[in-house]
Amino acid sequence: MTEQLLLDPTRKPSAAGVMRAAEKIAKILPQTPLLPLTVDGKKIWCKAESLQPIGAFKIRGGWHRLTDLGAEQRRKGVVAFSSGNHAQGVAWAAKQLNVSATIIMPSDAPLAKLENTKNLGATVITYDRLADSREDLAAEFAGESGAVIVPSFDDPWIVEGQGSTGIEIREQMITLTGQAPDHIVACCGGGGLASGMSLVNPDADISVVEPEGWDDMRRSLEGGTIVPVEDNPPATDCDALQTLMVSPLTFDILRERNAHAVAVSREEVHHAMRVAFQQLQLVVEPGGAVALAAILSGKAKITDRTALTISGGNVDPDRFAQIIGA
Amino acid sequence: MTEQLLLDPTRKPSAAGVMRAAEKIAKILPQTPLLPLTVDGKKIWCKAESLQPIGAFKIRGGWHRLTDLGAEQRRKGVVAFSSGNHAQGVAWAAKQLNVSATIIMPSDAPLAKLENTKNLGATVITYDRLADSREDLAAEFAGESGAVIVPSFDDPWIVEGQGSTGIEIREQMITLTGQAPDHIVACCGGGGLASGMSLVNPDADISVVEPEGWDDMRRSLEGGTIVPVEDNPPATDCDALQTLMVSPLTFDILRERNAHAVAVSREEVHHAMRVAFQQLQLVVEPGGAVALAAILSGKAKITDRTALTISGGNVDPDRFAQIIGA
Repeated sequence: MTEQLLLDPTRKPSAAGVMRAAEKIAKILPQTPLLPLTVDGKKIWCKAESLQPIGAFKIRGGWHRLTDLGAEQRRKGVVAFSSGNHAQGVAWAAKQLNVSATIIMPSDAPLAKLENTKNLGATVITYDRLADSREDLAAEFAGESGAVIVPSFDDPWIVEGQGSTGIEIREQMITLTGQAPDHIVACCGGGGLASGMSLVNPDADISVVEPEGWDDMRRSLEGGTIVPVEDNPPATDCDALQTLMVSPLTFDILRERNAHAVAVSREEVHHAMRVAFQQLQLVVEPGGAVALAAILSGKAKITDRTALTISGGNVDPDRFAQIIGA
Repeated sequence: MTEQLLLDPTRKPSAAGVMRAAEKIAKILPQTPLLPLTVDGKKIWCKAESLQPIGAFKIRGGWHRLTDLGAEQRRKGVVAFSSGNHAQGVAWAAKQLNVSATIIMPSDAPLAKLENTKNLGATVITYDRLADSREDLAAEFAGESGAVIVPSFDDPWIVEGQGSTGIEIREQMITLTGQAPDHIVACCGGGGLASGMSLVNPDADISVVEPEGWDDMRRSLEGGTIVPVEDNPPATDCDALQTLMVSPLTFDILRERNAHAVAVSREEVHHAMRVAFQQLQLVVEPGGAVALAAILSGKAKITDRTALTISGGNVDPDRFAQIIGA
């Protein structure tokens, strides 16, 4: 594949693009560990992306996208909207590259995510999740400033960047067990991580996991066409997974792969956070624990070689204490 | 050095022994990550031993010791005394090798450590920390059963096994930064970890950190001779570091290296646990956070290439919630 094609923003994400992202990412980010966990007497493998410098896998897509900006684009900066992990990923990459970053974040985002994004040097603009359109705010800012919009999943670079997680999982499982995973379980907001990983693990089953009431990917895959979240979705503390509608970019990949999709309850998520605390010594945010919740609840199968993502660990201490101490 | 010498229980721990331990450990335990953390604008490196399968570095010494047992010794089993992390390290190694393990633990050990040790298949005997002598209990059991006593630090295998942490830190820092550490900060109960790591980092300054009131290594190093903890030491939640007296084996190594020793307060430890939670997304037990506490409080210096150990993460959820949520 030519360099030109890989820089085309209208292209579809590809395995070659994921491999290119992985090479760039390996130069700046050490591999996160793949930790064993025994569930019902079977060993599964947990990819601890919560240990990335920003506490989530989103650093991958941010780095892959921003390093491919041209000189003029870098001068004008970037704008993104995110409840916090993509925000930090873009801000982190922008800081390394000396690019200005403006992030549009919901005013009810976890304080840790708001603070961390500011501490990375980004300009944060907050909006009311119920009253304002973050897409409109970003488009308006981009129109005025010339900044490049960096979407959180509907973008080939972002899908490819997140997909690099799947290359590391594959390499680490082969090193540790001699074989590649036969089943990968991933959290799903817009589906960037799951679709990207599936491109480089063509022989593995893929399961995607959403919080109950926010399972639009599940309903879309079952119906064969994209449907949004229903009106008045329930409250969830999986703030990282509150995506109202997935995109054709991610949906088409997961549909073609016949991905299995499940929804997990609040109680199942909290239980998974407690198991991660006690068995893995990891701080995991609610949205980062859904894949483990699906395995522990039996909603996702445990095969001989199952790997799952622990995708983020940015949670306010009071909230974490409430969940763990309960 | 001949194999025979390396199997002599009266030998002193050596750099060659640490390298031999590291080779054995690399075959069964993937390297724990070395995570960057920015403190006062400077980058330090945190070795996350809390992510070992038993949640602490103690798995290293247990594995190195038990794999060197002879066939007759394996048949008779092992006995150890520990508040919990060494207990789990010995129990884990014993389980892999199909050796019976009996662990003598204080009745006030964290529930997580008691449960985990039992879950690893060890027989747990509890004792009253104030009324009973764990050494006498272990000697009595060993006399009756013929089991090999596995001390928690006063043993060449244990020092060498823990020291393998220092080889990994060195290799990882060279990979990540191009240079070896010039300063290593480690927790100190009996001093096994610090003395072992110092053997394979001859060009680094060594700092050891104890909880206030349990700083017998500090007082011993200052006085030039081993002194025990003073009578009626204060309560501490650093259960892993409540060693009443260090041994010549560890003391002599640290004295020869002119190690710097400091004591940290309860508040400094809790602050370090909160920083590890928020910045590293790690669950760290009080005793596992003392090295970070020494850095954050300014009691241990930050050099150009400082590495520290996050040594354990086995803490009861209620206790963790109290400390983090405060």
